[in-house]
Amino acid sequence: MERHPTRTCLARLPDGKLRELGVGDFEKIDALRSKPDHVVWLDIASPDADDIALLRDEFDVHPLALEDLEKRRQRPKIDTYAEQQMIVGYEVLPPGDQEHLFELGELHLFVGAGYLISVRWRDSPAIEGVGKRFRDRPDAVARTPGTLLYSILDAVVDGYFPLLDRLTDKIEDLEGRILAGGHTSDSLRIVLRLKRELLELRRNLSPQRDVANALLRRDLALVDDASAPYFQDLYDHLVRVLDTVDLQRDLLASALEANLSVTSNNLNAVMKRLTAFTVILMVPTLIAGIYGMNFHFLPELNWPLGYPFALGVMAVAMIGAAVFFWRRDWF
Amino acid sequence: MERHPTRTCLARLPDGKLRELGVGDFEKIDALRSKPDHVVWLDIASPDADDIALLRDEFDVHPLALEDLEKRRQRPKIDTYAEQQMIVGYEVLPPGDQEHLFELGELHLFVGAGYLISVRWRDSPAIEGVGKRFRDRPDAVARTPGTLLYSILDAVVDGYFPLLDRLTDKIEDLEGRILAGGHTSDSLRIVLRLKRELLELRRNLSPQRDVANALLRRDLALVDDASAPYFQDLYDHLVRVLDTVDLQRDLLASALEANLSVTSNNLNAVMKRLTAFTVILMVPTLIAGIYGMNFHFLPELNWPLGYPFALGVMAVAMIGAAVFFWRRDWF
Amino acid sequence: MERHPTRTCLARLPDGKLRELGVGDFEKIDALRSKPDHVVWLDIASPDADDIALLRDEFDVHPLALEDLEKRRQRPKIDTYAEQQMIVGYEVLPPGDQEHLFELGELHLFVGAGYLISVRWRDSPAIEGVGKRFRDRPDAVARTPGTLLYSILDAVVDGYFPLLDRLTDKIEDLEGRILAGGHTSDSLRIVLRLKRELLELRRNLSPQRDVANALLRRDLALVDDASAPYFQDLYDHLVRVLDTVDLQRDLLASALEANLSVTSNNLNAVMKRLTAFTVILMVPTLIAGIYGMNFHFLPELNWPLGYPFALGVMAVAMIGAAVFFWRRDWF
Amino acid sequence: MERHPTRTCLARLPDGKLRELGVGDFEKIDALRSKPDHVVWLDIASPDADDIALLRDEFDVHPLALEDLEKRRQRPKIDTYAEQQMIVGYEVLPPGDQEHLFELGELHLFVGAGYLISVRWRDSPAIEGVGKRFRDRPDAVARTPGTLLYSILDAVVDGYFPLLDRLTDKIEDLEGRILAGGHTSDSLRIVLRLKRELLELRRNLSPQRDVANALLRRDLALVDDASAPYFQDLYDHLVRVLDTVDLQRDLLASALEANLSVTSNNLNAVMKRLTAFTVILMVPTLIAGIYGMNFHFLPELNWPLGYPFALGVMAVAMIGAAVFFWRRDWF
Amino acid sequence: MERHPTRTCLARLPDGKLRELGVGDFEKIDALRSKPDHVVWLDIASPDADDIALLRDEFDVHPLALEDLEKRRQRPKIDTYAEQQMIVGYEVLPPGDQEHLFELGELHLFVGAGYLISVRWRDSPAIEGVGKRFRDRPDAVARTPGTLLYSILDAVVDGYFPLLDRLTDKIEDLEGRILAGGHTSDSLRIVLRLKRELLELRRNLSPQRDVANALLRRDLALVDDASAPYFQDLYDHLVRVLDTVDLQRDLLASALEANLSVTSNNLNAVMKRLTAFTVILMVPTLIAGIYGMNFHFLPELNWPLGYPFALGVMAVAMIGAAVFFWRRDWF
Repeated sequence: MERHPTRTCLARLPDGKLRELGVGDFEKIDALRSKPDHVVWLDIASPDADDIALLRDEFDVHPLALEDLEKRRQRPKIDTYAEQQMIVGYEVLPPGDQEHLFELGELHLFVGAGYLISVRWRDSPAIEGVGKRFRDRPDAVARTPGTLLYSILDAVVDGYFPLLDRLTDKIEDLEGRILAGGHTSDSLRIVLRLKRELLELRRNLSPQRDVANALLRRDLALVDDASAPYFQDLYDHLVRVLDTVDLQRDLLASALEANLSVTSNNLNAVMKRLTAFTVILMVPTLIAGIYGMNFHFLPELNWPLGYPFALGVMAVAMIGAAVFFWRRDWF
Repeated sequence: MERHPTRTCLARLPDGKLRELGVGDFEKIDALRSKPDHVVWLDIASPDADDIALLRDEFDVHPLALEDLEKRRQRPKIDTYAEQQMIVGYEVLPPGDQEHLFELGELHLFVGAGYLISVRWRDSPAIEGVGKRFRDRPDAVARTPGTLLYSILDAVVDGYFPLLDRLTDKIEDLEGRILAGGHTSDSLRIVLRLKRELLELRRNLSPQRDVANALLRRDLALVDDASAPYFQDLYDHLVRVLDTVDLQRDLLASALEANLSVTSNNLNAVMKRLTAFTVILMVPTLIAGIYGMNFHFLPELNWPLGYPFALGVMAVAMIGAAVFFWRRDWF
Repeated sequence: MERHPTRTCLARLPDGKLRELGVGDFEKIDALRSKPDHVVWLDIASPDADDIALLRDEFDVHPLALEDLEKRRQRPKIDTYAEQQMIVGYEVLPPGDQEHLFELGELHLFVGAGYLISVRWRDSPAIEGVGKRFRDRPDAVARTPGTLLYSILDAVVDGYFPLLDRLTDKIEDLEGRILAGGHTSDSLRIVLRLKRELLELRRNLSPQRDVANALLRRDLALVDDASAPYFQDLYDHLVRVLDTVDLQRDLLASALEANLSVTSNNLNAVMKRLTAFTVILMVPTLIAGIYGMNFHFLPELNWPLGYPFALGVMAVAMIGAAVFFWRRDWF
Repeated sequence: MERHPTRTCLARLPDGKLRELGVGDFEKIDALRSKPDHVVWLDIASPDADDIALLRDEFDVHPLALEDLEKRRQRPKIDTYAEQQMIVGYEVLPPGDQEHLFELGELHLFVGAGYLISVRWRDSPAIEGVGKRFRDRPDAVARTPGTLLYSILDAVVDGYFPLLDRLTDKIEDLEGRILAGGHTSDSLRIVLRLKRELLELRRNLSPQRDVANALLRRDLALVDDASAPYFQDLYDHLVRVLDTVDLQRDLLASALEANLSVTSNNLNAVMKRLTAFTVILMVPTLIAGIYGMNFHFLPELNWPLGYPFALGVMAVAMIGAAVFFWRRDWF
Repeated sequence: MERHPTRTCLARLPDGKLRELGVGDFEKIDALRSKPDHVVWLDIASPDADDIALLRDEFDVHPLALEDLEKRRQRPKIDTYAEQQMIVGYEVLPPGDQEHLFELGELHLFVGAGYLISVRWRDSPAIEGVGKRFRDRPDAVARTPGTLLYSILDAVVDGYFPLLDRLTDKIEDLEGRILAGGHTSDSLRIVLRLKRELLELRRNLSPQRDVANALLRRDLALVDDASAPYFQDLYDHLVRVLDTVDLQRDLLASALEANLSVTSNNLNAVMKRLTAFTVILMVPTLIAGIYGMNFHFLPELNWPLGYPFALGVMAVAMIGAAVFFWRRDWF
């Protein structure tokens, strides 16, 4: 059975068996999905013109949805076109560079009677994980296209939790670093970077929550009574993720304010030290200046121990000033 | 009657009597809860696989609810599964370390016809308090599963008030400390810690209020007309707790801003002192410099009292400068 | 007619006459309030166990409402118990100390068919004012229990306006003080205090507005068509009070930010002065140092007028520097 | 026809003609307004007891509305009393002093079947403008009481636009002034003043928009199908005014933050200059100190050109330091 | 066929053919638009009195809409007048000067049965682009007036995306510049300018989104079932644009705060350097002062190598201090 490089097609037969379809088998796909109790899952990675044509011609995908596929970078949404639901979501992927904590992988899902099509442009842990479970236990994952949709979205949402933990760690590190009074400009760079990532995440998650809500609320054939609690659970998870992101944004804002306070505080410490140093050094300079005066009648100058006496006075003055400032914690 | 280490099972009989059931008595539990006017309360501490199996097999708990039990760290919520309500809440526990002001104990409650199951992983003052009152006066606490639910949630919510008082004290202390101009970095550390705890609290309380609201609004068999005012009261209390948390967050934000102002102000004071010290010491240094010049015709140098005169001029200059700055409150 | 120390009971008879009832006359109260067109007002100050029992036994007050009475510190609310409305509100009282601008007096009102019960723990200008007007013109104040309720709530709300004026004055004073660059830590203390009072006020007023709204919206027998505009007016006044509180919070926030700017600005001024002083004093010190050098061939030293010349150069340098900084407004 | 000093009464007759009524003509007013297709407009400036009595007795104005008239300073609102609508609004007046950019003139309008009454306490450009147009073309301005109401409110709202332009200019001036680093305390004073005026404006405009919305939404006889687009237009204008006020508040907030940054920045510049001056003056002082040492064997002292050499070294050092700091832009 | 300088009129005939109408052909326009399945598009650039008259007399445009046309600067809105919808929108135009990133071109659209009129005052890339496509493929662009409206609005919204990309670049540049610690006042100027442009954009986009939503929600004949997904798509795009603008505002706010932190941090660095310089220069000055004292018995003065010894001590002290501060990163 010939395989198309960018397409994988699995079908659950009514007896719970799995059948893997080849790339040219469109007639079979069509036949299968129109039979009752069959679930056909077509997964397309990095669709090319050929795939787009397939979607347009065989699955009646709406021109706007195809345009979205070609343009990419869509906002998470659920669009209803006649018999078909089109869902756009994003999953968390490991970052491609050191600069970022994550990347987002776009996912377009088309669900209709008897089939689900997933389209994506990158390796997708969620799709691949669900695919593996589909092969193992087709019945558990894809009793209906709706449950297959849930399985995929659930895997997508679960991918956010490790990222949140990583973000929490980063923010705690940052707070510790700021309170320890470390290099401010490094902290600032981290604050701005984390802020940007949290905002990016929020911008992406908030419509995704709306999608989950729409799946719950709308009278969609694909969410039946048995799967309703699952979609409720999905929604709850997304709300929890968003709550955490908001909490982290608040913590980050406080960290930025704390950073300003710490900088101000450091400045105070520096100025106190400057004051202390100035006084400690100026006092003996003044004394030296006094004994450098050229008065004819300046008795100490003739004392045999005048010089050690002067040095002693200087030392006492310096130590006195140092102790004075030390006690006030100005050093 | 054999007792299961992690399970306690109490039943209120229709005549208002209490009956404590052993761990193996599942048949009895089942028999009792199906009779009218019986209320069976099963409390499970730190459920093990055995308990999970019991919930699944005998109480028909939904797989998603069991998954929540195993994963823990759920968001407070109320989920409706067929005949069963599942409620997740958190109660305030004493903290395990000095760093925190409180810990949150997760509580899963399952309410169905004739029974309530509570699951928790820590010692729970709320559960234990209600359990004690149940034993004393079964009728007052658990006329129906709904009133038993109210009793438990009410005990949970009441646990928040002492924590709020403690937080209020901490914030007032902090304000005093900041206005007194104490160690800024300590204050900052406290601010960030309190902020984190308030955010944590808010994140937990806000969905809990939504649960209380859902209990009031939804057409749930478990809230009958007689118990409606009690659930209204519960909701009012949660709103009050949240109001207080918000007030405290506002106060904390002001404290953080005040801290910045105080630091700035302290800096002003330090710089004024630096200026004063600099001038006070530089003026006599200049005078000493003048009399240290080597001019051949410098009359004061030959005065018999030139030296004391010079010292006098210096002293006058220093005192003058000191008074000048003292008057302007620069010292 | 014996009078109970904590209870006052007035009744408006259908002919518009007033009748004052003694403390033991419960039968009379009961008889009166059940007759059509009678309005009985029972006012209880600092209720004791006896009063609580009266409310429970004779007026069928709900146990939760009694619990609220005993616990006090309730959130403003309106609760409906069978035939009875229970309203919790707060009125402004003069403060007990210099630290605060006001105190809040808790007020519990119970309204049912033919009667209104007011409970409070302090002298209440609102209750006493309405009581006086009731005695003078029973008909104007208490045509029905609803209009009596309006009269009391209106007196409560009117009490907020003088407080708002006082707060406005305080904030304008504060702004003037901050712009004048006065003692920052005093200003800060005032800011934090006012902020706390405004937050306290807001926390109290916002649910009170919701109560007024509920009185308008809900299908309550106690607000009839004729009194609806009055309750609308009450609601409008509360909204105006809240608007003013919000405006004041915004002004206070700006004042706090302005304070930071002023402090920063003062620091600038101090540093400019430090710079000016440093330069003005260092320049002649350098000159003195130059003529203090021990070169054998240093012509000025031998000039007869070398010393005055040097002093002149110093003076010119100092004046020049001073003028330089003066012109730049650095002094 | 005798004229009452504070009242003007105009009537549009069904044939589109204008009729001006004298002050004592109440019977005529009453007769006219009860006829179909007549519109009577009574304008009262600074109402006295006599006017209040007229409103109460002849127009059945509700006691609460009369109380509002006497108290003044009402929140913009629309109240419905039986057959009558009472609308409170504010128009922009030129300020009475240099301190403010505007004053607000209170306007109470009563609209009923066949008549509109306007009450105000100051010269009102809006009322007078509409009055003039009424006299010129009664039909265009007051086909019905509803269109007369629209004409007045439209004139009121149009009065806000020039004020907004003036505010925009002030804010742009302020931004320029702040970025130019001018006198910070002046800028602060302006910021606080503008903020206060914007808040005042917002507090006034927001309920006015709600009034416009209520006029649109409510089933009011006075807005018929033909005038609905006009009231929609009124509402749109108010929304635009509010949008602009919000935009200006945002700009002002940024200006305040920018001000803080500029102050901080100025401080940096001052400190850099202090550092530069300090170094530039201390280096030659040190050199002078060195040649002021009393060592017996200090060869330079005996050089014939030692003195010019030392001065040269000082000059080189000073110029070197100055160039060093100049290049780093520290001057 | 004579052409009016400010008007272009295109018509799609039912056979999908294009017909361009001359300026005087009003009868033809009228005839065409009243025929079923014709779509007439009249585009007016910079309308003069003649055009206004045409709209009033021939298209029955409402007086308020005409007033809006004359006044311009309307808020984006959709107004329904009898059979006609009037839509106001803004498109992004290239800026006229270096100061701004964009200009907004106002667009008034009137849609009725069989026709759409577009009015604008500037060259409009959206109108001209759609016009070109209309000429090429009349059927694809303007099957109905509704689809023609969609085509124009879609072109308008698409114009925002390149602007957003430019803004994102500007903000990233700004962040880099701030973190690099560049000229603060330049950064501030850019922040304020970008903030103003984002606010301007937001103020314009937010009502435009409401218009798109109204087009979706309202029962408008011009959005039929087939075009509903297109208007949904339009709405989604506007929401995405607004999300991005909000994200950018948040980033800008952080940048402004970061700027303050950086300035504070720079100040710290300057003060550390001042402290270091002060100490490094004062220590040898003190030593020189000591050897400048005139004590008769000051042994070092007589050492043959006293002078080099003193210079050595100074050098050691200076190097020691420099190393001390270098190690602490104070240089």
